[in-house]
Amino acid sequence: MKAINVGLLGIGTVGGGTFTVLKRNAEEITRRAGRPIEISIVADRNLDLARQVTGGACKVTDDAFAVVSDPNVDIVVELIGGYGVAKDLVMKAIENGKHVVTANKALLATHGNEIFAAAQKKGVIVAFEAAVAGGIPIIKALREGLSANRIEWVAGIINGTTNFILSEMRDKGLSFADVLKEAQRLGYAEADPTFDVEGVDAAHKLTIMSAIAFGIPMSFDKAHVEGITKLDAIDIKYAEQLGYRIKLLGVTKRTPEGVELRVHPTLIPEKRLIANVEGAMNAVLVKGDAVGATLYYGKGAGAEPTASAVIADLVDVTRLHTSDPEHRVPHLAFQPDAVVDLPILPLAEVQTAYYLRLRVEDKPGVLADITRILADQSISIDAMIQKEPGEGEVQTDIILLTHQTREKNVDAAIAKIEALAAVQGQVTRLRLEELQ
Amino acid sequence: MKAINVGLLGIGTVGGGTFTVLKRNAEEITRRAGRPIEISIVADRNLDLARQVTGGACKVTDDAFAVVSDPNVDIVVELIGGYGVAKDLVMKAIENGKHVVTANKALLATHGNEIFAAAQKKGVIVAFEAAVAGGIPIIKALREGLSANRIEWVAGIINGTTNFILSEMRDKGLSFADVLKEAQRLGYAEADPTFDVEGVDAAHKLTIMSAIAFGIPMSFDKAHVEGITKLDAIDIKYAEQLGYRIKLLGVTKRTPEGVELRVHPTLIPEKRLIANVEGAMNAVLVKGDAVGATLYYGKGAGAEPTASAVIADLVDVTRLHTSDPEHRVPHLAFQPDAVVDLPILPLAEVQTAYYLRLRVEDKPGVLADITRILADQSISIDAMIQKEPGEGEVQTDIILLTHQTREKNVDAAIAKIEALAAVQGQVTRLRLEELQ
Repeated sequence: MKAINVGLLGIGTVGGGTFTVLKRNAEEITRRAGRPIEISIVADRNLDLARQVTGGACKVTDDAFAVVSDPNVDIVVELIGGYGVAKDLVMKAIENGKHVVTANKALLATHGNEIFAAAQKKGVIVAFEAAVAGGIPIIKALREGLSANRIEWVAGIINGTTNFILSEMRDKGLSFADVLKEAQRLGYAEADPTFDVEGVDAAHKLTIMSAIAFGIPMSFDKAHVEGITKLDAIDIKYAEQLGYRIKLLGVTKRTPEGVELRVHPTLIPEKRLIANVEGAMNAVLVKGDAVGATLYYGKGAGAEPTASAVIADLVDVTRLHTSDPEHRVPHLAFQPDAVVDLPILPLAEVQTAYYLRLRVEDKPGVLADITRILADQSISIDAMIQKEPGEGEVQTDIILLTHQTREKNVDAAIAKIEALAAVQGQVTRLRLEELQ
Repeated sequence: MKAINVGLLGIGTVGGGTFTVLKRNAEEITRRAGRPIEISIVADRNLDLARQVTGGACKVTDDAFAVVSDPNVDIVVELIGGYGVAKDLVMKAIENGKHVVTANKALLATHGNEIFAAAQKKGVIVAFEAAVAGGIPIIKALREGLSANRIEWVAGIINGTTNFILSEMRDKGLSFADVLKEAQRLGYAEADPTFDVEGVDAAHKLTIMSAIAFGIPMSFDKAHVEGITKLDAIDIKYAEQLGYRIKLLGVTKRTPEGVELRVHPTLIPEKRLIANVEGAMNAVLVKGDAVGATLYYGKGAGAEPTASAVIADLVDVTRLHTSDPEHRVPHLAFQPDAVVDLPILPLAEVQTAYYLRLRVEDKPGVLADITRILADQSISIDAMIQKEPGEGEVQTDIILLTHQTREKNVDAAIAKIEALAAVQGQVTRLRLEELQ
């Protein structure tokens, strides 16, 4: 059967991996897809690199716009990244009636609504399994595998760099800054790690999962995004003493008042499988009303794991591109006219449990003052540690775990607690999820 | 848009769950599928039960053959189970041009080749997500999500009853027989638990996964099937001392000489996530050449988790039934003309690592004899425990872990070891998988 022709934009890590895996597993993939999938043209600014990777197996060009207009190209794979030229290329490809496969979470989280609307109008597919959690087929699970369910929440470790750093901080008792340096040396963190360590990358991925879980538009601008740069190693230690691990979690939850959409360091009971996801691995936990909690685990980044998702999309498009657009899987899991613009809850209205750490003078009445403030805000305490003061010290740490309460109540309580004369400095606040 | 009509065969646990979830999530499912999915007729021998569950919402009959011939029925859902009348009904439904959704692993593992050939000829879909690991979308992951990969192996905890029993044996230090009684009392095990505890149910599911992972026909009759009835609590304890958990694992692996297809109690390093899957939960680990190891975890049984998979198939069929059969996902993941009948390896040729427990007289030279026998069979030792004899005893336990070797070498070594005068009774042999 005639091959389907792919135009590849960008031959960096993932592009190179895609080229390699398509070639190595060509026979296996053809046996599945029913026809060969071939990269017929590659565009990259670095022509030498493109020639070297492809080894003369296909045309190379430095003009990406020529690829998205090439009449021989059936599917455009966009692996350039970012919101700039990548957006123009994707929009142009759609305009030219090409199907698009992309790994670009930043682009979809910020411009997905516009892109999917254009694709819908043109009757083409925009597939994006590789945009979230690398090789784990979580988009397919959410959009198709769990389609019977009213999805209640999704919680994921969806950034390998930060999970590696947190694992190392716990294992070795080191500070964030020290581990970051080590991670950069090993290639687990970029020279400018901001997108990873400040939670932006995780928030892009979470935004996409939230949209397809609940049938809402991409709402990245309303996400609460908090990274791990301010996380203190002492809190990892105290959390462990209480039976918890700290992970950078993306959480999106449906509530009667709106959708929660938040990325932040989170305490998770150590007995949960997801609490034991270590190193650069990713995992996503999905709670559906019928199926209960299901977990998806694997490599969230890297050349071949990401290529695995890109090529799975290519196989899907190869199968589906002849079917009428009305009978394909909708981009956002729900039919376009059934997408509902639910409100995203401001953080102050979010309800969860909390970990609070305070430095206090070791004298009578302090704990009574603190617990009174919490009670006044209707915050009930689930567990508490009060450390004995160190040798020669007059101050000590108090660690509190609360039951579920509203963030704004905690804000108010923390302001009052910090105003107490016996409390030193700021209260450390982390959120806690039971994930059941 | 016009509803798609479902004829439901069997309104027991899963049938009832399917009816309930379809009704409760009707709006959500229609938003995804693009049109309503409605059960128009239910067949069950127990008409009273059928009337009670459906509450007059659809027709009920005790004639299942009337349903598979009903011109108003687009999709037949078979939830009767077994190989008898269920097979006749599925074949008749296909003959009548109906698409079929089934949760019947026994039927597919034993008659799948015939059923899929008939469906292929007739151009209808036979979908079976619910047949393996309940609500976990593992069939979709294997057939579609990982389609870029040459799959190397699949290993799964795919029987909740046995995993519950093993978890309890470990937690409470009880024997198999005692825990089985408790499991039966709690409803986790059936009155006749043979299919579960002897590994047959797991082998049915493994057979299906093996076929779609490697593109081979269903080969249940060649599977090695070993349950947990002979597992001694002492081996769970010794395994734990060596850093392992014992799980009933279904393992299928591609090797140069053929495909391994085996179900047996297996030692797994306790650090692996899958070693920590407790109670009645299921989990499947899939190793692909590009993606690496990915894990899928969730409830493997129960009314609503299984219904979740049945309904996901209904949504898929609703979407795909208008597309030409050549562009659908092939039943066995690979195009029918690309299914290859690879040989299934006899157990004697399987290579894995082993756990051996021996009862020996505590006297000089015994260990030398044993290690000499192992060396003669080219079996190298990875770890060993020799217990001190108990107070007043002259015998003691030796526990050995071997490196990878061939089963027939272990068979030969065990025969020679058991012939030693200082070795009492039989050698206990369990298999060990690193799962990396």
